[in-house]
Amino acid sequence: MADGTVRRRYVYRFEEGSRDQRDLLGGKGANLAEMTRMGLPVPPGFTITTEASTEYREAGEMPPGLLEEVWHCMRELEHVRGREFGSSNRPLLVSVRSGAPVSMPGMMDTVLNLGLNGETVRGLAQEAGDERFALDCLRRFIQMFGNVVSGIATGDFERILQRTREHAGVESDHHLGVEDLRALISEYRDLYAKRMGHPFPEDPRDQLIAAIEAVFRSWDNPRAVVYRRHHGIADNLGTAVNVQSMVFGNLGDGGGTGVVFTRDPASGEARLYGEYLQNAQGEDVVAGIRTPRPILEMKDVMPDVYRELERISGVLEAHYGDVQDIEFTVENGELFVLQTRSAKRTPTAAVRIAHDMVTEGVINRHEALRRVNPEDLSILLHPSIDVSDEETVVVRGLPASPGAASGRVVFDSDEAERRGAAGERVILVRPETTPDDIHGMVGAQGILTNRGGMTCHAAIVARGMGKPCVVGCADLHIDLASGTARAGSLTLRDGDAITIEGSSGAVYAGEMDLVEPVLTEHFRTFLSWADGVRTLGIRANADTPEDARVARDFGAEGIGLCRTEHMFMEPGRLEAVQAMIMANSEEERWNALEAILPLQRTDFVELFRTMEGLPVTIRLLDPPLHEFLPDLWELREDIRKMQDSGASRADIAMKEELYSRAQSLQESNPMLGLRGCRLGLTRPEIYEMQVRAIFEAMSEVRAHGIEILPEIMIPLVSDVREFRELATMVRRVAEEIGNVGAYLVGTMIEVPRACVTAEAIAQEAEFFSFGTNDLTQTVFGFSRDDAEAKFMHHYLTEGILPDNPFAVLDEPGVGVLVRSGVERGRSGRVDLKIGICGEHGGDPRSIDFCHRVGMDYVSCSPYRIPIARLAAAQAALQGRD
Amino acid sequence: MADGTVRRRYVYRFEEGSRDQRDLLGGKGANLAEMTRMGLPVPPGFTITTEASTEYREAGEMPPGLLEEVWHCMRELEHVRGREFGSSNRPLLVSVRSGAPVSMPGMMDTVLNLGLNGETVRGLAQEAGDERFALDCLRRFIQMFGNVVSGIATGDFERILQRTREHAGVESDHHLGVEDLRALISEYRDLYAKRMGHPFPEDPRDQLIAAIEAVFRSWDNPRAVVYRRHHGIADNLGTAVNVQSMVFGNLGDGGGTGVVFTRDPASGEARLYGEYLQNAQGEDVVAGIRTPRPILEMKDVMPDVYRELERISGVLEAHYGDVQDIEFTVENGELFVLQTRSAKRTPTAAVRIAHDMVTEGVINRHEALRRVNPEDLSILLHPSIDVSDEETVVVRGLPASPGAASGRVVFDSDEAERRGAAGERVILVRPETTPDDIHGMVGAQGILTNRGGMTCHAAIVARGMGKPCVVGCADLHIDLASGTARAGSLTLRDGDAITIEGSSGAVYAGEMDLVEPVLTEHFRTFLSWADGVRTLGIRANADTPEDARVARDFGAEGIGLCRTEHMFMEPGRLEAVQAMIMANSEEERWNALEAILPLQRTDFVELFRTMEGLPVTIRLLDPPLHEFLPDLWELREDIRKMQDSGASRADIAMKEELYSRAQSLQESNPMLGLRGCRLGLTRPEIYEMQVRAIFEAMSEVRAHGIEILPEIMIPLVSDVREFRELATMVRRVAEEIGNVGAYLVGTMIEVPRACVTAEAIAQEAEFFSFGTNDLTQTVFGFSRDDAEAKFMHHYLTEGILPDNPFAVLDEPGVGVLVRSGVERGRSGRVDLKIGICGEHGGDPRSIDFCHRVGMDYVSCSPYRIPIARLAAAQAALQGRD
Repeated sequence: MADGTVRRRYVYRFEEGSRDQRDLLGGKGANLAEMTRMGLPVPPGFTITTEASTEYREAGEMPPGLLEEVWHCMRELEHVRGREFGSSNRPLLVSVRSGAPVSMPGMMDTVLNLGLNGETVRGLAQEAGDERFALDCLRRFIQMFGNVVSGIATGDFERILQRTREHAGVESDHHLGVEDLRALISEYRDLYAKRMGHPFPEDPRDQLIAAIEAVFRSWDNPRAVVYRRHHGIADNLGTAVNVQSMVFGNLGDGGGTGVVFTRDPASGEARLYGEYLQNAQGEDVVAGIRTPRPILEMKDVMPDVYRELERISGVLEAHYGDVQDIEFTVENGELFVLQTRSAKRTPTAAVRIAHDMVTEGVINRHEALRRVNPEDLSILLHPSIDVSDEETVVVRGLPASPGAASGRVVFDSDEAERRGAAGERVILVRPETTPDDIHGMVGAQGILTNRGGMTCHAAIVARGMGKPCVVGCADLHIDLASGTARAGSLTLRDGDAITIEGSSGAVYAGEMDLVEPVLTEHFRTFLSWADGVRTLGIRANADTPEDARVARDFGAEGIGLCRTEHMFMEPGRLEAVQAMIMANSEEERWNALEAILPLQRTDFVELFRTMEGLPVTIRLLDPPLHEFLPDLWELREDIRKMQDSGASRADIAMKEELYSRAQSLQESNPMLGLRGCRLGLTRPEIYEMQVRAIFEAMSEVRAHGIEILPEIMIPLVSDVREFRELATMVRRVAEEIGNVGAYLVGTMIEVPRACVTAEAIAQEAEFFSFGTNDLTQTVFGFSRDDAEAKFMHHYLTEGILPDNPFAVLDEPGVGVLVRSGVERGRSGRVDLKIGICGEHGGDPRSIDFCHRVGMDYVSCSPYRIPIARLAAAQAALQGRD
Repeated sequence: MADGTVRRRYVYRFEEGSRDQRDLLGGKGANLAEMTRMGLPVPPGFTITTEASTEYREAGEMPPGLLEEVWHCMRELEHVRGREFGSSNRPLLVSVRSGAPVSMPGMMDTVLNLGLNGETVRGLAQEAGDERFALDCLRRFIQMFGNVVSGIATGDFERILQRTREHAGVESDHHLGVEDLRALISEYRDLYAKRMGHPFPEDPRDQLIAAIEAVFRSWDNPRAVVYRRHHGIADNLGTAVNVQSMVFGNLGDGGGTGVVFTRDPASGEARLYGEYLQNAQGEDVVAGIRTPRPILEMKDVMPDVYRELERISGVLEAHYGDVQDIEFTVENGELFVLQTRSAKRTPTAAVRIAHDMVTEGVINRHEALRRVNPEDLSILLHPSIDVSDEETVVVRGLPASPGAASGRVVFDSDEAERRGAAGERVILVRPETTPDDIHGMVGAQGILTNRGGMTCHAAIVARGMGKPCVVGCADLHIDLASGTARAGSLTLRDGDAITIEGSSGAVYAGEMDLVEPVLTEHFRTFLSWADGVRTLGIRANADTPEDARVARDFGAEGIGLCRTEHMFMEPGRLEAVQAMIMANSEEERWNALEAILPLQRTDFVELFRTMEGLPVTIRLLDPPLHEFLPDLWELREDIRKMQDSGASRADIAMKEELYSRAQSLQESNPMLGLRGCRLGLTRPEIYEMQVRAIFEAMSEVRAHGIEILPEIMIPLVSDVREFRELATMVRRVAEEIGNVGAYLVGTMIEVPRACVTAEAIAQEAEFFSFGTNDLTQTVFGFSRDDAEAKFMHHYLTEGILPDNPFAVLDEPGVGVLVRSGVERGRSGRVDLKIGICGEHGGDPRSIDFCHRVGMDYVSCSPYRIPIARLAAAQAALQGRD
């Protein structure tokens, strides 16, 4: 430049770039350059850099010198292709596409066939030997340019097209004749001129400048801005612009277009997979007018091209080291590759491909582990709907427990139990579930409720059982009296068939075809590689021997959370629990507890047998007592009815006593009320009974040579003094019983104060388990049920929160307290065992955090164990990078 | 010692010690030594050190050499007093008392007259010329020694005494004759021997050894251990033992005993105040058989002694620089001082004395400020009960709003309003209050409820109004239907007189005499000294112009929290608010809000006029909307009644609509639900209306030349993005209205996540106000209402928590997050203004924390402003030490 500085270069020919230059050339440009350098047949072209885009945005005008570079490259393109831009003889046509450094799908459309006008269309007609074809190209170009570059609504063009079809009396655009198209083009031009105040640009150079500027501007269109904000993409990256010469697959039967995957993206099988369409352009495939043919058929039609495609596929997969999704066009028997990218694949395929590529030596195990998204594995672990059909979705709720289930609607738990036992597939549909519904849930294939959030009774129990469950389906109006459920115009009656999808929250009318999960050998091998890499232990949240067995099968290395309240809620025990609550003295309470003790002991004996040799963390009773009593409203109604029906005074008095006790247990905010260790401290008999049951069970299994390491966990501790008092009781009971073997006493860390005072707590507690469900509630001051029902949706759609913090551990907030709890805990006790047992223990991003923060293990629901194994391996690999 | 080390010394004569040796000699011993060194007439004696006690505890036996030292000192005592220990001629008698380094009242009783036995009693009789007197001394000694040293219940001795009185046919011990006493002593000895398995120790040396050991052991008696744990006193301090020769005030009319205060401990007036009893020992005063005479009368009876007492009082007050509470005994015309200590005083006296001592030049202002307990000032700011009579307390609740009030019981708010307006003094008694009861609360002198905690509606509103209030009175069973309230055997009916004491939670039957508060000139001057010292600003939590006026009178420098919800709850507005809630569209909601806007604007105009020139922090609407709707149960009952009484279908439908809306607003944990900024974000019209009202009011008062600095506060922020969106709205509305002057936009910090992410929040917010009520709830995971009703009492009595964290800011837990919020906030914005507006803003210990942590101001209820001013001054002084 005049001042002596070297002027920045804005344009790179494809030959000059490489895949490492994503920042400068964008993702698409870098890949086109890479393929060009590999000697693959890419239609020639060039890329305008992201820096040019940034300068354009800052200055509001084209950077000086940019256009000179563009024209220079265009001349080279003319030379290479033996064509001329704007000529009526062998005109050069180009496509113009955006390409940001990070993928931002749908941000900016493509402009194809740029360079067409009244003149050049004749050249194209001549070359194709088909005037109708050329005019149709021009018609499409005006419409695309008008929409993408000039912002005229596509609908405005489509209305003219529609009129033209009607006028011509044809159904499809393909049947429009040359004259129809001429008239149509004329109308398109009129529309353009009227809307824009100037005629459609005939000069191809004007077209190109306008298209480049449009791509630059598209970086700041509202949907791109929102997308970047949502994904945390910096605003100053800018987008590159790719200008590439057009190739035509629709110039005759020697041409065609298609997409090929280097392996089967559904099964992962190592064979070419894809479709092609003879004598066609990409658009024709999209339009769906002609049905593409399987790629294998191409072998017969154009064997040379097919062989070349096979070769290129192999080259690209080997070069990129991953399955590729390749777009190609064949022009007069010549194959062109238009794009390559890593192929999207089903979870089944992802696992198989990762596995196979290791055995083939293409990638190593670490790379294989990185390739599979842990979250996708859940599909492999639950039945799923074979072919999803959005149109039959009748209503949606919260995806409370993954997997799909079909069956007949049943509104009553007793009936669900009966019909389930008789072998019928039923879906239990309830306004919400309570401990009284457990037997119905056991009998049902899946559960659907109108109320509740992700942690309501139905959700927790269903996840524990591994049963599909959809809750909080607010638009499903259930009327138990009439035995119907309305959703929009549809009314479901008892016995109607439905299907629920607990991974998405969708409810379908009718029985959909389901696919059962298969744990393939590939999958097991793949997971064993994960086990070799990860340093985090993986445990399961399991309350019953059945859950524990599933968890062990899936690879759990222990139980990280056994919630004892479910033992209290089992049918047949609730009466004893209620008697305990109704007791008026410590002695009466002990009597009631004595009835529960042998049952709990049996539970633990069975659980310990199942988990032989592994640690089992048992949480003492956590929920508030009123959860074990009937609903207050229902009790009031019962009393009223008893009074009306002239029941005996004694019966009414008993019910009133129950009502009065239930009322006295009511709380304004039960989440923050008399529960956890607060219950254990104010009603010490309950915990003592539980601890006694645990140690008696230990003593019993030890007598049969079974060793187990129970970790007795005291919930909801906020101060070391709470813990100390209860831990003293635990150790006293252990001594009283004797011969119990080794055990640990620790606590759940689930309120902020426990994190803050963790050093003191760790001096007394032998392990910490972070209960991040409650911790998230208290750190945010969000009641999970209320938040998810009332404002979480708004927060997520408005971007106030990037993720639901109950699903993904909130690192900047909750995470800071967890980290300080870990650090303070370890400074109080060097060998403190630390884990997590909230729902986050099964979430890959949260598992990564747990790894980084130095926890010993994560614990999650049995059906998420494989996900956690993989996520823990990825976290370990991430740490090594 | 034999091994050459210098043996530790265990015993110090009073002449050898000083008041600086509290650690070694205990508080009492150090003071006795100090007075001895000052040359005051203290009966001679010596002190066994705390170190001896500690060695005794560790070794379980008397430290070697200790007794030798004791006997040595005893011989000196014999010499000084011209008496002999154990002699029947002028026997030396001593008292033995414990004395720890820190005051532990009631930990260990005193043993008087030690040295008496069958022999020495004769010498005493001879000396006194009164055998009956001497035998009575012996009788008392056996009883006291038997109880204090040997642990025999006092009741066992009292039963024998009772029988002896009955046998002798007399009513009072004083009328027992010599023979009666001899028989009694014999029975006492029998009791002792039977209980202890050995006879009563006749040898005075054995008596002394046993008494010393008993004092040593008393350090570890259960009540001392509990006391220390409760007050955080180290277990290894140990207690000293004071052995002092007895003097007798009851040897004739030339003797007597009494207590004198150097100033009036009730009024603070600078004159001797006290009582004396001629020919008596201290015990007689305690027994209450004879009525002591005012100290002034002594002037006539024994003028020389009185002058000496006056002189000594002056010397001691000047020496200690504080009002003294002095015990004295006159033995045959000779004055002995037995004890001196800083006098307990009423709050009125405390302020006056502190004030006067500064003007007298005895102490400086800083010392004066340190002398007054801020908490005590609340007595000076509210009416109080003149003479409290525990026997008339019928029931107790939570002390929700301080001060006493008398009046007639009224169960209905309308009636309370009517009768209050008619000039009658009434107490509103309700199960709990709701916004519908405001008018009744306005009309009543005080409020009493059966339900609710320290932050229930009644408590908050009453504190705001400065009205006495007792809530959560669980033992008061209110039956609105019959218009009665039962408490134990008492039934209160409409119109019965009661008195409530909102500082203690006591409820009295009948109208007690009340004393109105007087803000004396002493008090005002004293507080002005506090203002000169403190660095913390003091603001008030005030919602109405009336509150604001009270606050300004008390010295508030601004409003730190104006809760706008009370503006929504005022009668006449609730309808509009309910219409807003019932609205089905944004437009309907705006219409309803338009009706509220001018009313809110008027509120703000008045508030701004009152607070001219000062900052006013206005919190946008915080509570969940269902608080503005009728109770769900009541609505259901209403509908049922309407159905039964055949109301019109349209009316029922309307009620059902209200019910359905109220139901849809129900939450599991409203504390953690749709409130604060969550409400502001999901229903933006409400906040926009409020902000509009504020700015329109600003604009209006500015037109009248009134400047004000509003600080608009967004509640319950957990993430900066919540704040950003709402702050943008606030600034937009300010611009739309124009001419609003300066204002700040800031946030309340009341959930842990806000503390943790404070740096980011402070980059957008101009001030922080710590809402430590909610922060305490979320840090502990305690719902305040539920905790106080269900388990806080247990936690406090069992020492699981040292203080109720809702009353005293929990420094190790909540405080850590507050501190980190302050630090992170200031690193996000250097000049961030930081205050506190939770209840803790009025608690002295919490104010000290706020000072240390570097806040700019505290804000508290208007009636606690003087307390806060003093506490802030003390905090500043503490920081300078």
